Amino acid sequence: MFEELIQKLQKFDTVGVFSHIRPDGDCIGAQVAACLWLEKNGINAIGFNDDNVPLNLQWLAEFYPIQEPNEKALNKCDAFLVLDGNSPKRFGSYSDYIQDYPKPSFMVDHHPDPHDGFDLSISVEEASSTCELIFHLFLQNDVSQVDEKVAKALYTGILTDTGSLQYDSVTPETMNIASELLRLGEFRPNEVAEKVFSTKSLNQLHLLSKAMSTIELFEDNQIAIMYVTKEMLEETNTTNDDCEGFVAYPLSVAGIKAAILFKALGDGVKMSLRSKSNDVDVNKWARKVGGGGHKKASGAWHPGPLEKAIEDLVEIGAEQLVSVDKS
Amino acid sequence: MFEELIQKLQKFDTVGVFSHIRPDGDCIGAQVAACLWLEKNGINAIGFNDDNVPLNLQWLAEFYPIQEPNEKALNKCDAFLVLDGNSPKRFGSYSDYIQDYPKPSFMVDHHPDPHDGFDLSISVEEASSTCELIFHLFLQNDVSQVDEKVAKALYTGILTDTGSLQYDSVTPETMNIASELLRLGEFRPNEVAEKVFSTKSLNQLHLLSKAMSTIELFEDNQIAIMYVTKEMLEETNTTNDDCEGFVAYPLSVAGIKAAILFKALGDGVKMSLRSKSNDVDVNKWARKVGGGGHKKASGAWHPGPLEKAIEDLVEIGAEQLVSVDKS
Repeated sequence: MFEELIQKLQKFDTVGVFSHIRPDGDCIGAQVAACLWLEKNGINAIGFNDDNVPLNLQWLAEFYPIQEPNEKALNKCDAFLVLDGNSPKRFGSYSDYIQDYPKPSFMVDHHPDPHDGFDLSISVEEASSTCELIFHLFLQNDVSQVDEKVAKALYTGILTDTGSLQYDSVTPETMNIASELLRLGEFRPNEVAEKVFSTKSLNQLHLLSKAMSTIELFEDNQIAIMYVTKEMLEETNTTNDDCEGFVAYPLSVAGIKAAILFKALGDGVKMSLRSKSNDVDVNKWARKVGGGGHKKASGAWHPGPLEKAIEDLVEIGAEQLVSVDKS
Repeated sequence: MFEELIQKLQKFDTVGVFSHIRPDGDCIGAQVAACLWLEKNGINAIGFNDDNVPLNLQWLAEFYPIQEPNEKALNKCDAFLVLDGNSPKRFGSYSDYIQDYPKPSFMVDHHPDPHDGFDLSISVEEASSTCELIFHLFLQNDVSQVDEKVAKALYTGILTDTGSLQYDSVTPETMNIASELLRLGEFRPNEVAEKVFSTKSLNQLHLLSKAMSTIELFEDNQIAIMYVTKEMLEETNTTNDDCEGFVAYPLSVAGIKAAILFKALGDGVKMSLRSKSNDVDVNKWARKVGGGGHKKASGAWHPGPLEKAIEDLVEIGAEQLVSVDKS
């Protein structure tokens, strides 16, 4: 799968590696591992992201630095590798630069409906994570290059993009890769999981406590919603980043098919949609309001106010549930 | 590892299989899988437990029935196999019967300090779960007997006893077994995880919301505590069973070494102790008040009241933290 990409990458002196804006465990893990792969194979790598690395992932950025892009640094690069996003706009302020500049750009990703403007794309929607794909970059070339840093970076992405190895994207192969990463990196899962998940502040848990009290069910208990407001953040001295992972709570209600987290934090309402039914495609649902993502996990934005966003999204969901029932 | 046990079991017509009282995913998963193994190998099996199977595990009891023990049913058995507990008292009202009766009794377990009164014991403290051990029963004999039911039962125990494959008890081998179970059983992790974890009621989430607002830190932010009171249960129309897994929340606070969940539900205070530091052994800690378990996960009981239980347990924890600092 990676043979052609490896051949192409080996021709360059310096490759700029982008992870997507508003970064998460999978894009940072893939970026750090890809940069280490390049360095191990004699190619300079520069990691770029417009946004700061989230607090719970900063230990990964110690394995390989990630900097804000600027023209001077980008000019040093002979090619670009973009990870865990399939359209240039996912890569922030220099997306035009990546798209229009005559330097080659390559993509590795697992999201649906990839943009086709890259010189080479490895796009595998079935993969649990971009980190699972990047493991194959090592496997294809020299798996002994998977050291502790690479292994922990890749494990982070697999862990965070699969809800701790619980999603239906996890195949026996994903689990074998997780096993190999533990073996090659000589670590135990808690060493990564505690860094990634057990880094909550008291304030964040108090925010979660408030958010959980808002969970409500709609459409004959098929849709669960939860919301977070700007006031809740102020009361608990927290920020938007503290809401990471909150959507798992409405999703955990027995018997529901889909859940939505609404975040009314000032600029309209941001929404995270999740499905736990093969019948409910939240990608379609999110696209109706200009968002998108995966069948089981998507994002969208609504101008607000909160009550209107909830009403509209539940209504769209209700239509989809009806069409499921009729089919 | 299982050769001798298999030879012994094959001599009997009927084997009574016990899971421990107040059953969890690991003991029920192991029990169901062991009963299926016996049946597949021409031996009658009867599953026993004093207590009801928890709601989120009742789908497993459809794979193989588990009944309350009584003399008549016990008399049918030629031998007993006790699972996921290492002392007869863990198996409830008929523990004397198992212990004193001249019928052979066998144990498979992964808890420390096993009782030595069994005719044969397979006690592997390093194993992630009893289900991981029971997989070896199949591996030793005929791994093709791992069908969907067996695979899902064993996967349940591995999942629930490792905090969703996150604990330091998870080795590359554990992860390989998880992969094999997904392959042999032809399922994806969400099919088990959603049954086991995503079966919360609105009331339970509202109880969790209340409990999370009680999280406090002690001893220079090294110990986190959380509590649940009888009043909270009444206000949210919930029961003790709804507190399952709550201890993960105080444990998720960044930088702490140990967490305790206190449940003041009437008959004194029940406590779940968890460590996420190699330096802090909560088994030692729990033993000081007559409880016990594993280094990283133990249980205990205090006569109360709640405030006194918190004071005493934090004080014992503080002593242990001091002795760690001195060592």
